[in-house]
Amino acid sequence: MNLDQIFNAAQEAFLFYKNLPGKEKGEFLEGLAEILEENRAEIVPLAVEESNLPDGRINGELGRTIGQVRLFANLIKEGSWVEATIDPALPNRTPLPRADIRRFLTPLGPVVVFGASNFPLAFSTAGGDTISALAAGCPVIYKAHPAHPKTSHKVADCIHQAILKAGLPSALFTHVEGGISEGQALVKHPLAKALAFTGSHTGGKALFDLANQREEPIPVYAEMGSVNPIFCFPEKLKKENDALAKAFVGSLTLGVGQFCTNPGLIFVPKAQAAAFEKAISDEFNDIASAPMLHPGIAEAYYNSLQLLQSREELRWVKVADPQHLINGSTALAEIKASDWLNDHIFQKEVFGAFAMMVVYQNEEELQEIAKHLHGQLTITVWAEHEELQNQLYFINLLEEKCGRLLFKGVPTGVEVGNAMQHGGPYPSTTDARSTSVGAYAIKRFARPIAFQDMPDELLPDALRNDNPLGIWRMVDGEWKK
Amino acid sequence: MNLDQIFNAAQEAFLFYKNLPGKEKGEFLEGLAEILEENRAEIVPLAVEESNLPDGRINGELGRTIGQVRLFANLIKEGSWVEATIDPALPNRTPLPRADIRRFLTPLGPVVVFGASNFPLAFSTAGGDTISALAAGCPVIYKAHPAHPKTSHKVADCIHQAILKAGLPSALFTHVEGGISEGQALVKHPLAKALAFTGSHTGGKALFDLANQREEPIPVYAEMGSVNPIFCFPEKLKKENDALAKAFVGSLTLGVGQFCTNPGLIFVPKAQAAAFEKAISDEFNDIASAPMLHPGIAEAYYNSLQLLQSREELRWVKVADPQHLINGSTALAEIKASDWLNDHIFQKEVFGAFAMMVVYQNEEELQEIAKHLHGQLTITVWAEHEELQNQLYFINLLEEKCGRLLFKGVPTGVEVGNAMQHGGPYPSTTDARSTSVGAYAIKRFARPIAFQDMPDELLPDALRNDNPLGIWRMVDGEWKK
Repeated sequence: MNLDQIFNAAQEAFLFYKNLPGKEKGEFLEGLAEILEENRAEIVPLAVEESNLPDGRINGELGRTIGQVRLFANLIKEGSWVEATIDPALPNRTPLPRADIRRFLTPLGPVVVFGASNFPLAFSTAGGDTISALAAGCPVIYKAHPAHPKTSHKVADCIHQAILKAGLPSALFTHVEGGISEGQALVKHPLAKALAFTGSHTGGKALFDLANQREEPIPVYAEMGSVNPIFCFPEKLKKENDALAKAFVGSLTLGVGQFCTNPGLIFVPKAQAAAFEKAISDEFNDIASAPMLHPGIAEAYYNSLQLLQSREELRWVKVADPQHLINGSTALAEIKASDWLNDHIFQKEVFGAFAMMVVYQNEEELQEIAKHLHGQLTITVWAEHEELQNQLYFINLLEEKCGRLLFKGVPTGVEVGNAMQHGGPYPSTTDARSTSVGAYAIKRFARPIAFQDMPDELLPDALRNDNPLGIWRMVDGEWKK
Repeated sequence: MNLDQIFNAAQEAFLFYKNLPGKEKGEFLEGLAEILEENRAEIVPLAVEESNLPDGRINGELGRTIGQVRLFANLIKEGSWVEATIDPALPNRTPLPRADIRRFLTPLGPVVVFGASNFPLAFSTAGGDTISALAAGCPVIYKAHPAHPKTSHKVADCIHQAILKAGLPSALFTHVEGGISEGQALVKHPLAKALAFTGSHTGGKALFDLANQREEPIPVYAEMGSVNPIFCFPEKLKKENDALAKAFVGSLTLGVGQFCTNPGLIFVPKAQAAAFEKAISDEFNDIASAPMLHPGIAEAYYNSLQLLQSREELRWVKVADPQHLINGSTALAEIKASDWLNDHIFQKEVFGAFAMMVVYQNEEELQEIAKHLHGQLTITVWAEHEELQNQLYFINLLEEKCGRLLFKGVPTGVEVGNAMQHGGPYPSTTDARSTSVGAYAIKRFARPIAFQDMPDELLPDALRNDNPLGIWRMVDGEWKK
């Protein structure tokens, strides 16, 4: 099929699929969840082979992927996500009567999804972007990531089995392989109505620009990662130096540092810097170097580090050791906050298990740092309870720079739930108003439409007088079920 | 003040204002509503003088403006708009415990608002964009429309009185005058976090491109108008020919045709075309030509018509009469659907009281038209109840092309309420996911943030355990108050 055929078929599938009851769409997704589970024994070895990630991680990732499918299935079977809002007619209002106006969310149309290399399952073929788009009512044209073609193909087969089982049009999901130019052609097609991407800043920004240059610009949800700073306060570090070093190194090196929420930047008070650095170094000794996703990623990691090694502001606590080029060895550099503040290059993401430890002098410097910081997916604050009492302004500043603010634990390990926000101010994403993980991700692929004086029997079920779906709706300003 | 001073002050005001309780922000807006009402006798004559719109219309528009201020005041005093969502910690969950995650909407930061010439009050200085941004918690830097400087200045004074009365920082609202380059400089400033605009396609698209070319791209809510097609079905026209002609001409010529929702395109079945055209012509006789907003708008109107007059596909039922260049005289041209489908120029907006009557032959042609149509703010369907029963596919197609779909009445007269959607697919707006009228307009200026394991006393009131605001929240998947 050529591109026009693909998109025309997707558009016709869309016009049929979007009006199906949420219950039917949800059953289709439940069927997919089952099929993915049934194919676990085939999917896992392929993903392990193509990602160099260990069996345990990939098994867990498949579980997470299936959990996501079920989350969205439940969400659309319940149905309240459409924000049904009804202002009934007021025929006797003066000076003018009010018409009957009813609003809800309707799906955007065919969505182009780009898979991520670092999550061959959870952010790829049947990952969060694909599933939330399908849940919203949008067909997906999926551009497979070239790093894991066999895995992608296998999962695409599962999706087509689920489509067949549900009796839906096969054009609901199209698996497209190819390189950059194939991806660009998808984004340029007039029938594409939105675009989701997880990957590098360079890739995401290029797609964002392309989408905005279309005759009809379309929404772009590009999650481009960040350095996910951790701020350590003195008392906390004094009390828990070793435990925090362990937690930090665990998060930094998880999956060979190849997570969007990998903490690549840690701010440490001067008096505690030496002890903390020592504890980190000790932890590093326990970390075996492991292969990265593919040689290109390892090469980019070592190139980025090499560039930083020419900077005299940095003191290297541990230099990465590129003995096996595919392996991602840990690295840590230390810098004074005053130097760090002088150049934006020090907060550029290095994809891998590298962190920069920034040593700060006082609270004024902390505020300067917060103001200087780029947009992040997450920011973590490690402080004793009492240390936070005078930090309201600092916390206020941090809120402006991230999508998720943590006060315990580490940024890696993104919970899939209703309250999750995975997305933050630019450059961490191209649309801070959205999340790519959790229930709210579905809203990315919908837009509001209002019906004025539409005959009741033509209205979507979500908006009919008798509320046949039994969903939460705002009627005349009040939430009702 | 130079631009840096303006934005730095706005940013500091933001960091203070965003954390105020909704109740206090709401009282500030209520104070503004009162002050606007108290200044009615001064505001109305200025706006009449600067817009050429009649006293009755301007008085009504001020009422609507004040009503909007009160709507948003009530919305934020109530407080549930922030979508508070709480997933409490599950410390005993296996294999991994769940952290406490709480999400709500937080304001974006300083917003740049551009006023509209056609609504010197309701879409200008204290119009829907300004008020919904202030309600969300964002300071506004307002670029006054050069067509009504005195009105704008007077209303800005009212806003500053309200700020003073509420004891808030004056940088919450800044009134900026100037031309295109001053407007562009505002959009380019790094501290600007969003942009709202109502006006022409050329203006809106230029600002959209500029905002996307920033180092940090920002959301652009540009409402650029549309031609708001009306589709007439045969039986309906047979029954109500004269009444519909009257309704159509009334909507077309309201405010000398200078509304975003002005119906500039009407589709009529061939058998009824002659009778309907006759009835429209009769109605035109009763319409006195009236001055447009300013000479530039009248000139653009006549230039657009002149361009169309060279097209031989058009048969002119009534040619506009530019005898007094400032006056907007009505005009009507007829075209066959097959010709209309051949050139996109026939659906370009002509701002003023001009309409194109497109004569269609059958239902297949109607579907072609629906597919060919550009994105619209509104589409209206005039049909007998029975005529709609077989039109589900056609209605389905229309839904893809608009933000509001009407089945009675006319598109002008946009209700300000909870269910209103004023915004549609491109090119009617640059962001179909948003509305610029009604309660949901506030969401344009907010983004989600999640707090993970934040100590209860540091959480925003909307997210604290005891729900001190008594708002609707989703707790562990259930809506609760």
